[in-house]
Parts: sequence; structure tokens; C-alpha cells
Amino acid sequence: MTEDKRFVTKITPKSKDFSKWYTEVIRTAELADYAPVKGMMVIRPYGYTIWEKIQELLDKRIKESGHSNAYFPLFIPESFLQKETEHVKGFSPEVAWVTHGGEEELEERLAVRPTSEAVIGNMYSKWINSWRDLPVLINQWSNIVRWEKVTRPFLRTTEFLWQEGHTAHENYEQAQKETLQILSMYQEFVEKELSIPVISGKKTDREKFAGALATYTIEALMSDKKALQMGTSHNLGQHFSKVFNIRFEDRNQNLQHVYQTSWGVSTRLIGALVMAHGDDSGLQFPPRVAPVQVVIVPISKGNWKENILPTAQKMESQLKNSGVRVKLDDREEFTPGWKFSQWEMKGVPLRLEIGPKDIEKNQLIAVRRDTREKESVPFDSLIDKVPHLLKDIQKSMFEEALKFQKSNTYQTEDYQEFKSIMDSKKGLVKAYWCGNSQCEEKIKDETMATIRAVPLIPQEKRSSKKCICCGAQTDTLAYFAKAY
Amino acid sequence: MTEDKRFVTKITPKSKDFSKWYTEVIRTAELADYAPVKGMMVIRPYGYTIWEKIQELLDKRIKESGHSNAYFPLFIPESFLQKETEHVKGFSPEVAWVTHGGEEELEERLAVRPTSEAVIGNMYSKWINSWRDLPVLINQWSNIVRWEKVTRPFLRTTEFLWQEGHTAHENYEQAQKETLQILSMYQEFVEKELSIPVISGKKTDREKFAGALATYTIEALMSDKKALQMGTSHNLGQHFSKVFNIRFEDRNQNLQHVYQTSWGVSTRLIGALVMAHGDDSGLQFPPRVAPVQVVIVPISKGNWKENILPTAQKMESQLKNSGVRVKLDDREEFTPGWKFSQWEMKGVPLRLEIGPKDIEKNQLIAVRRDTREKESVPFDSLIDKVPHLLKDIQKSMFEEALKFQKSNTYQTEDYQEFKSIMDSKKGLVKAYWCGNSQCEEKIKDETMATIRAVPLIPQEKRSSKKCICCGAQTDTLAYFAKAY
Repeated sequence: MTEDKRFVTKITPKSKDFSKWYTEVIRTAELADYAPVKGMMVIRPYGYTIWEKIQELLDKRIKESGHSNAYFPLFIPESFLQKETEHVKGFSPEVAWVTHGGEEELEERLAVRPTSEAVIGNMYSKWINSWRDLPVLINQWSNIVRWEKVTRPFLRTTEFLWQEGHTAHENYEQAQKETLQILSMYQEFVEKELSIPVISGKKTDREKFAGALATYTIEALMSDKKALQMGTSHNLGQHFSKVFNIRFEDRNQNLQHVYQTSWGVSTRLIGALVMAHGDDSGLQFPPRVAPVQVVIVPISKGNWKENILPTAQKMESQLKNSGVRVKLDDREEFTPGWKFSQWEMKGVPLRLEIGPKDIEKNQLIAVRRDTREKESVPFDSLIDKVPHLLKDIQKSMFEEALKFQKSNTYQTEDYQEFKSIMDSKKGLVKAYWCGNSQCEEKIKDETMATIRAVPLIPQEKRSSKKCICCGAQTDTLAYFAKAY
Repeated sequence: MTEDKRFVTKITPKSKDFSKWYTEVIRTAELADYAPVKGMMVIRPYGYTIWEKIQELLDKRIKESGHSNAYFPLFIPESFLQKETEHVKGFSPEVAWVTHGGEEELEERLAVRPTSEAVIGNMYSKWINSWRDLPVLINQWSNIVRWEKVTRPFLRTTEFLWQEGHTAHENYEQAQKETLQILSMYQEFVEKELSIPVISGKKTDREKFAGALATYTIEALMSDKKALQMGTSHNLGQHFSKVFNIRFEDRNQNLQHVYQTSWGVSTRLIGALVMAHGDDSGLQFPPRVAPVQVVIVPISKGNWKENILPTAQKMESQLKNSGVRVKLDDREEFTPGWKFSQWEMKGVPLRLEIGPKDIEKNQLIAVRRDTREKESVPFDSLIDKVPHLLKDIQKSMFEEALKFQKSNTYQTEDYQEFKSIMDSKKGLVKAYWCGNSQCEEKIKDETMATIRAVPLIPQEKRSSKKCICCGAQTDTLAYFAKAY
């Protein structure tokens, strides 16, 4: 392995085989590895740091909007899951069951949580009594298990990490307001922190969460032109409060069932970062969530340890002190060229090179991962320049991704054209749809495209057109795409 | 419930029934609640905030000492657990087993992790090849399941949250150095952040971790004079690296097995905070980890909403801006006296009262939870005074606890006296012990006291005495106590 390390491990170019590139880059960059249990993964330190940044940046938003974190149990009694009919139908094929504790067989099987509505509903029924107890605004960061048949690191794994918000309100309007506020929060978070533009809207009944009144989603276009669901926010109505008997005395002293929401994003977002921003050279992370934002590579020629290394070390500590996540790569066993490729592959947004000539000129060379632009930066202005460059990279990465999304979004009223786009170019297609699930199924069968989201368009801005499939008159526009 | 809330829920005084007080205060203060699965708990927002503070303050130390976080899978194949004989003996009576995924029965049972040595060992064998890959310094924050028969919130629950560090080194000395460094880190963390003094030392073979070469521990005396294990650090030697075949090419090109450590603290620390600092009035949290550090209670007399509330709101926002976790209790349905008791019960370290006379004098009254001292503070100096008071409370809480620990630590060379202390006064007893597990067992059978730790005393400072039990000559001093 030490010998192999002298050469950059070659990964299949993205342009050649996207799917192979995806798994190779994840393992080579040490984001994740396969675990000994089928469908499970290990998130390695380099990948886990991204999750820590996501948690930090999203948790801040969750708390600022009035929510608190809590922790609910991993195991849910089978009878609880079965209380909500749609819910149990949706989840039981995916549940891992605990049947024994120590040497004893359990009287009732326990589900390893595939989501926590049932156990949280049970607790809320104890905690909520009056309108004064509302709203309840709780979030949980936890692990989740779903027994998936086909898995891919980050995108679909038997175990994953997520946050799940669970709120309870006095009436439908407040629950609906919460559902949409969280959807906006997710959109703002993903676009700003992950530099990934999304479309948002409502899921069709076929695609909604098992047990929800309505599911709202944010979806992004990956660089292979397939869509990925990035996060969902559900208005649960009174479905769960009725089966778990979560009642409160309202302002008029009447007993009512609460109105609930739930919402979540997961470690899937790391997969989105890989697929939205990566290229043939490897990963590309937006600075706000990059595990390493800046790598310093001293040009190891001649007496570099005496002439260059001390300056590089000084730069490292200056940047560290100003809050930059910086790494100095001073390893002797690798050439500078090898290091350049290695850190490009690992997606570090900015590289600082420093050689003998730079020392003479009191400068260094800054190279952007996104545009590969090089510029010389005087030592004196390093501390000002680096944060400025990182901010700029964050912004251009979003703009690039937005340009890509726009140039791969089509609108058509002709089903033949629709089919031909899905067949050749892929991407997002906006088309009118009658609202009937038979058309939705037919389109899926014939093109493999599903409705990703029905955008929330105010009544007055809608026009009446023909359903792309059956021709029936409709004012519902939908985003279609092939999806993960 | 709204009606009940008008009166402070009475909890059993600690002095009357410690055990009843413990569970009542935890539920009444809304730290935790019982979950629908036996032995599991829900950590409610007020309790979870303490865990978030513990995570933040400890994670900083873990990272500053060079460790990175990662995430390993929840499930461990049965065959992995069985590889290390002592390990499987120690843990299999406590394992929850997954036997079904979806509709299918699994070919091999999966353990819900009771600890992660086995699965991490398997991964390390893939990742480690050369001395250049060492040390590996990884930590994980996760949930753990152990099928316990007798459970108590925070102290012993079927599921709990913890951090587990897992490191790999080139030789024994480095592993031993890491083991002891972590032990010191835990001690410094618990004493400084939780204001709980601890004793530290080595566990006896009877009490060590299943599969370790040696286990080191920090132990604290709770206010009922029983000891609680607060954290452990294990030198695993090559036990796991031999069974999981974690080998590396050393600096002389020889293949060797790595030397490992593992170490952890858990949500049990929240139970320690309750038991070490609580009193008849309820909880008492040290400011550094208190969910709410300061509560402002306006005296709701006359036109208080016009005359007092605006000042209280201004104070709240000033304190919030200066980084204090502050809560303004402006509820109308409760009296100030009720609120005082309520927030005392919830363990808030500092209360600020503000009434009509205070407004006239441009001052407020600050009341400490620990000493109950009152002092008036001019509005102008609020922002300086509050952090100063909080710091002082943090320090005096430690000093109080240390005084308690010292006055309940005894040393004796007489077994009758030893028995009588354990019978009546309880506390920590320092006594010489021959090192034989038969004496250890006998003492346990006769007094219910176990050896909590063998303090690390340098050879030159030891004296030769008689074993408290069998009278054999020995230079090993041990701390005995009844323990949780």
C-alpha cells in the first residue's frame, strides 16, 4: 500500500461510467467504505466531517426557528407500527426485526426504527394535554434502518444517519405553515451551504410518505441528469394523532386531536455533493462543508525543508488561526504533482503552492479546484485573500450548478418529444399532467420518468393545458425526471 | 394538567428516599421519560440539551488531541462477536439480536452493537498496512444497546448514547500512553465542566472490560455516598488485532499486530449530574452544562406588563447577545413564588428577580441556586456580573463536591472497621488489598463493596501493609465502595 500510494490511484472517469466513478471516488477519497453487513457502510473521517458540517449548519437553522433536539428510542414495538394502516404498509417490508434480547425470545417483536412517527406519537399523547402545550417543536438526530434490497453508499443504505423533525400544532393551518417553512429552510440550506440548486413542490399521492396528508420535496439534478430527492417535509394532518390518541383541550375547552408534521434530510446529501459537483478528476466540495478547505503544498525541491517548509508552516498556522480548515501536506514520500492530483481527487476547493521562486517574490500560487484558475498572492494579503476566494468558489459552484440545471430543464406539451428527451438527453421535463395516477404510471412504464414535484404555483398564474399523457384539460404542471 | 401546573409538583425529598427522589426529579424536571419498550428511555429536550453541551465540550478535547470522528454500522454479525472469547462471554448475555430483515429470515443473526470493537477491528484490518498508517485515532458518537435486566434512567438503560474512541498504535508503550492520556482528559473534563471530582485508577481483573489487557476508570462519589463509574479507558493490547488480523509492516519491515485502545463516556454522566449535585429542592446544574443558565422572573404585581416586562425583555436580549443561555419566564398563569420553586427544581444556576422597587432603584436581585445567596445588581453592571457569578457557581459547586468527597473518604487497616463504615456511613474506603480475587469476592459478599479503582501510585511512594481481608503483605492500595 505504501508503494501504491506513490501513484495516484486511477479512478474511472465520470464521463466514461458515472456509476462506477461514483463508487470508486467515494472509496478512493476515503469518504466511506463497505461494512461487513450487506448494504451497510462505514462513514470514514473524511466523509464524516462533511456530515458534521451539515449538522452544524442545519442544526443552527433548526434551533433558530424555535425547535429543540431530543432523543427517542431505537426500537419500536410491532403493535405500534401496525396502528397506522398506510404507515405499516409502507414500511414493514423494510423493517429489521429484533426478536431476542440476551438469551430470551421477546414476547413482541421490536422494529429497528425505519422512522419515528409511531414512537413519538405515543410519547406526545402523554405530554400534550392543552393548547398551552402547543406547538411542540422537536427534532432528533439519529440513525435509521431500512432493509433495502439494492444499495449504494450514501444514496440508499440499510442504515443511514438523518434528522427527523416532529411537530404538533393546534390546527391544520399552523401545521401547513410549519411544513412549508421547513421546506423553505431546506431549500435555502442546500442552495447556500451545499451550492446545489433545487426545485421544490408537492409529491403525488403515489410518491408521498406512508401516512402523510401531503409530502413536499426538494429535488436536485445530479450531473448525470438524473434527479435526487434531497429532503422532504410532510403535513401529517391528524392521521397519527388519531391512532395514537394525541388530544388537547383547545381554547374553547373542546378536546381535539393535534395536527402534526414531520420532515427530514439524511446522509444522502453527501451523495448529492459527490454527484452534483464531481468531475473526471474526482470530488469537488463547496468550501462551507469541505472537510479541508485549503491544502498547502510546498514544492519539494533542493533544500525545501530549510527554505520553504518554515514559510508553509507559518501560512498554515495563520490560516488556522483565522478559522480556515487548512492542511499542510509536507509528506516526503510523494511528489508535488502527485499531491496536486490527490487533493484534487479529494475535492479540496483551494490549493496553495509555494516554491523557491515564490519565496524570493514573497508570494504563493493559489489554484482553484472549480475553475483551475491560478493566481499569485502576496504573503501579506493571504489572510484577506483566502476567505474571499473561498466565498467566491462557494458562489460560482452554485452558479455553475444552476446553469447546468437550467440548461437541462425542458418544457413540452408533446408526448413524443417528452419520450425522446427522456430517452436521449434526460434532465428535468416540465409537463402538464391531469392528476390521475394512471397517467403517472403509464409515463413511468414507458419512459422510466417519475413525477419529482408538482411546483406550488398560485391559482392566478396557472394556465389550462392538456395532460401530456391522456390529453385531458388540466392546470397542473409537474416536473418529471428519471431519478435515484 | 394545566390545573396541576399551578402548583409545583411535589417531589419526594432526596433526604427521605434517594432512589425515589432520583426518578421523580428526572421525570418532573422533564429530563427524561419512560419509553414504551422496557428499559428504554426518551431523553426530552431539557435533558438532551445537557447531552449536547457534554458533546460539544468533550468533542473539542477529543479533536484537539488529534482524533477524528467517524461512523461504523449499528449491526455486527454474530460470528464477529464470537471471535474474541472474553469479549463474547462478556457481552452476549446483553445483546439484542436482529433475525429478520423485511419478510426474510437472515442467514446469520446480527447483534445490535453493545460496543464496536469487533466491527471496527474488521475495518482496521483493511485500512492499516504500514507503520505510516499509524496511529489511527478515531472516535464515534453513537447509540448502544445492552439488554439490561434492571434499569434506571441515565444510569443503566437498554439503549444509551455514548462516544467510543478506538485507536491503533505501533507498540505497547504508545497504546498505554494513549490510554492514560484519555483517562486524564476524562478527569479534567468531568471536574471542570461537570464540577464533579473523581478518583482515578486501574480496574481489577474482575471488573475490567471484556477483552482488555487493562481498564482504567474515573469514579465519583454520588451524594448518597455510593460510587458511580464515570468513564473508562482500555488498553486492549493485541487481543483484538490478533483475532481480526490487523497487521502492519513496522519500521524494520517486519509484520506485526497493532496495539489498540478503546474508551468511552455515556449519557450516564447526566445521571451523575443529578446525583452529585441535586438536593431536596431538585436539580442543580453547573453553569457550563446547564440547559438554562439564567432565568429571569419578573414580579408580576400591578401593571407589571407595562412597568417591569420591558426591562426584563431588555435584560434577556442583552444576556442572550453576550452568549448566556437565558430564559425569561413571563407566563401569566403562574405566581413568582411558583416560578422560583419550579426553576430551582429544574436546576437553573442563577435566578434574576425584578420587581417594582428594583425598577425604581435601577437594579435587580440575583439569587444563586447553590448557596441561595441574594445580591442586588445594578442594571449597568448586569453583563459583567452574570458571567462572573456563573463562573463562581461552577467553581463552588466543584469545591462543595470535593469537600463532600473528602469528608466521605476513609482509610483503615482493620476489617471490622471497614465493615462498619460500609454498613453505616458508606463512602469511599482506602484499604490495602493482596491482589487476589478471592479476597475481592469475599469483601463483596460480606459488605457489598467492590474495588472501584486501584490508584496509580509510583513504586517509591508505596508502603508495604497487610491485606484488609487475608492479612497477606501487599503494597497495593485500593478504593472500595458500594456502587451503582
